[in-house]
Amino acid sequence: MQISTITQPTLLVDTKRVKANIQRMKAKAAANHAVFRPHFKTHQSGVVGQWFRQIGVDRITVSSVSMAKYFADHGWDDILIAFPVNLLEIKKINELAGRIKLHDLIEDLAVAKQLDKLLEHLVGVYIKIDSGAGRTGIPLDDENRVLELANQINVSKNLTLKGLLTHAGHFYHQPGGKTAIAEKTQQINQKMRALKSKLRQEDLVLSWGDTPSCSMLDNLEGFDEWRPGNFVYYDVMQYHIGSCSLEDIAVAMACPVVAVHPECEEMVIYGGSVHFSSEFIAADDNFRLYGYLVNFTENGWSETVAGAWLARLSQEHGIVKLPKEICWNYKPGDLIGILPVHSCITVSAIGQQQDLDGNLIAKMCIC
Amino acid sequence: MQISTITQPTLLVDTKRVKANIQRMKAKAAANHAVFRPHFKTHQSGVVGQWFRQIGVDRITVSSVSMAKYFADHGWDDILIAFPVNLLEIKKINELAGRIKLHDLIEDLAVAKQLDKLLEHLVGVYIKIDSGAGRTGIPLDDENRVLELANQINVSKNLTLKGLLTHAGHFYHQPGGKTAIAEKTQQINQKMRALKSKLRQEDLVLSWGDTPSCSMLDNLEGFDEWRPGNFVYYDVMQYHIGSCSLEDIAVAMACPVVAVHPECEEMVIYGGSVHFSSEFIAADDNFRLYGYLVNFTENGWSETVAGAWLARLSQEHGIVKLPKEICWNYKPGDLIGILPVHSCITVSAIGQQQDLDGNLIAKMCIC
Repeated sequence: MQISTITQPTLLVDTKRVKANIQRMKAKAAANHAVFRPHFKTHQSGVVGQWFRQIGVDRITVSSVSMAKYFADHGWDDILIAFPVNLLEIKKINELAGRIKLHDLIEDLAVAKQLDKLLEHLVGVYIKIDSGAGRTGIPLDDENRVLELANQINVSKNLTLKGLLTHAGHFYHQPGGKTAIAEKTQQINQKMRALKSKLRQEDLVLSWGDTPSCSMLDNLEGFDEWRPGNFVYYDVMQYHIGSCSLEDIAVAMACPVVAVHPECEEMVIYGGSVHFSSEFIAADDNFRLYGYLVNFTENGWSETVAGAWLARLSQEHGIVKLPKEICWNYKPGDLIGILPVHSCITVSAIGQQQDLDGNLIAKMCIC
Repeated sequence: MQISTITQPTLLVDTKRVKANIQRMKAKAAANHAVFRPHFKTHQSGVVGQWFRQIGVDRITVSSVSMAKYFADHGWDDILIAFPVNLLEIKKINELAGRIKLHDLIEDLAVAKQLDKLLEHLVGVYIKIDSGAGRTGIPLDDENRVLELANQINVSKNLTLKGLLTHAGHFYHQPGGKTAIAEKTQQINQKMRALKSKLRQEDLVLSWGDTPSCSMLDNLEGFDEWRPGNFVYYDVMQYHIGSCSLEDIAVAMACPVVAVHPECEEMVIYGGSVHFSSEFIAADDNFRLYGYLVNFTENGWSETVAGAWLARLSQEHGIVKLPKEICWNYKPGDLIGILPVHSCITVSAIGQQQDLDGNLIAKMCIC
């Protein structure tokens, strides 16, 4: 454990936990007869990507053209951009499609036509289905629009229909927990299989992916491909959903303590919304949870400190609430750890990560 | 106006508006007999800093040691780090204190003692006073703690007491608007002047700074130094507080449209929490405001589009709510603008900015 050189907010990655999380999810996908196409938007790291490759993963998902380019430059040659195709990036899309197996996401007839005209190389296409998240995609029940779009893709010169893709983003806020998620997953699967049978394309991939369902459900058969992403690090939000234990969370933000206020049961850390982003879990207007407090140990970090949580953020300041008697354990100049609420967004905000031995894991440079 | 080369989320800065905002605030500080020490945490740009210097500003405020180093490297030689001193960064603090006039913020007796021991050069010190924001600092009414800390600083070898500093962060949520802010500002000023008289140091600086009060109040005499920061760009939050008009907001995020859903009165843009951060204004659980929609024009951007707002964010997606009849004005491949809710955090999340002619304004590299 090498933390003595840390002087400002630094995202630490516990390599052992990450590798265990990857191994477990890969085995689970295999047990459910699904191809594993993990989403790399969480770690955004060539180094972590390498850990997937070492156990045989050969295709991935990303959420932007820039990220696709980053991982293509790191040797990945089968990449799905799980984001509605951005026509303004056609030049970069063409450049990528010329050197790797690139897959795009489409939901719009006019976009399919235009993309086909602008492409200089073949790309695989997944049709985006909205299975209840309400973010984007063709509603699962709108069979006609799916068929119409599939026909358009099939008559295209540069597009090859590869699959139907959905992301159950609403499972992050699903009342009823595991039971409800299992039931809804089964309903979605049945409808997607029905859609597939209407499309009469045997090799069409039903692509599924969200960390809650892939983590929680014992049986998740019926999808051909899994694309979870967050599971690589997990976070406090996934713990609250029930996707992981606190011991599975593989990242902690190391933050210097800059003030301790026992009189109001608070301590001030260097670590704010520019490091964590501003996402939180709210119980009500008076309670916001941005992360849990941990102490660093010889080999990593402790269990979460009971009664302590990151409760407020401004640009560079974080306010940790903690019982008065525990305040006395901390003083300015100490380094504490925070398990973040949302690891994907935190990785992106902080921009770089290091392992427990002080080795740089990634220095994202998407910009 | 040069936007035809933009293909992904890009933060645009309207130079004219910025320069007008700077000029106005500088004149107002002068009219109130205060030294202008603007906070540079909002723009974090050497180029924008230059615009301040051109009109005679020669001292600045920042919120981290890294930012102090960045601006020292850009020629600034009188910098206040308005963040409780982080003892872990002593090496960088010493390096800076050796080459510029550096000012640190202290609220803790033990920290003052330790800092004095660790310093190799003189630094100026401001005592942090909590005037009601409840984030950090010695409570304004705790005269004894202030006097004790001042005495400690005065017997130090490497610390020189320069001022008393407060930031009325609570004005961002102040019921009663301008009238209440005026009243509370006056109360704080009276108490700080009383504190100063107890300290018997004629040249002690009373340092004040928040964009709402500095923007809204007609008379803000009684403070020796102003440190507002956000006013350089303003944003939708400041507009809601009443600090600025929508025409004063000097930044807009250019975002590609990737899907339009008239049936649910929404459009999907490439522009998510990794670009805007996750901060929002909430009216209630069912309404979140992340920004307002504008259209680009020949010389900048239009007024905000009535009835349209950025309502949801995920990692890369933004969902704009807008009336069905207006949906038809947009299609995938278009570029729209979003006035962000919080410009400081957005600047930090996106990492770089450009002016309306396509020139790079800043590529922050704090990491």
